[in-house]
Amino acid sequence: MASVKLLAMYTQPEDEAAFLKHYHEVHLPLVLKVPGLAKAVVNRIETNLMGGAAPYFMIAELHFPDQASFDTAMASPENRAAGKDIGNFAKGLLTLLLALEA
Amino acid sequence: MASVKLLAMYTQPEDEAAFLKHYHEVHLPLVLKVPGLAKAVVNRIETNLMGGAAPYFMIAELHFPDQASFDTAMASPENRAAGKDIGNFAKGLLTLLLALEA
Repeated sequence: MASVKLLAMYTQPEDEAAFLKHYHEVHLPLVLKVPGLAKAVVNRIETNLMGGAAPYFMIAELHFPDQASFDTAMASPENRAAGKDIGNFAKGLLTLLLALEA
Repeated sequence: MASVKLLAMYTQPEDEAAFLKHYHEVHLPLVLKVPGLAKAVVNRIETNLMGGAAPYFMIAELHFPDQASFDTAMASPENRAAGKDIGNFAKGLLTLLLALEA
């Protein structure tokens, strides 16, 4: 029932253009190979409506149909490859949260 | 085109049960009255996969079809009523980010 989402929340990179180029040309293609992934949605954060700097630059949602498919995905070599790639463009920038759609 | 999302990110409340009761019985019904809102998705944060405490307890996504409908929504009395209600259950807990789906 409740779909499972991995929220990949990235803080501001030093070089936005280099980050986005690597994300779209290398990282997202690796993520899209992860078995069981139902949908990936990439959100660019524009404004902190409470004032001040936004705490994140980008939030990607990776949707899985259920916990079992999420667990299988996390254990896959494709997921390990995507995880390893984080160090190539987003070292220290990433918070990864597991969320359940209510 | 790029859909516009308001991300309402709540940190951990002292009393989870009271927070959730107010959210679902009072706040969300107010939010659902905001004109132009296309969809509301409520995500409970389960785990910080990077280790440590999760930085948020709940993230609600409020989807609008475009910037114009978002601007109209923000200026509406229904939105002011929903905003005012935040003080009743989530004082100091809320970060509100404007996001564009890439």
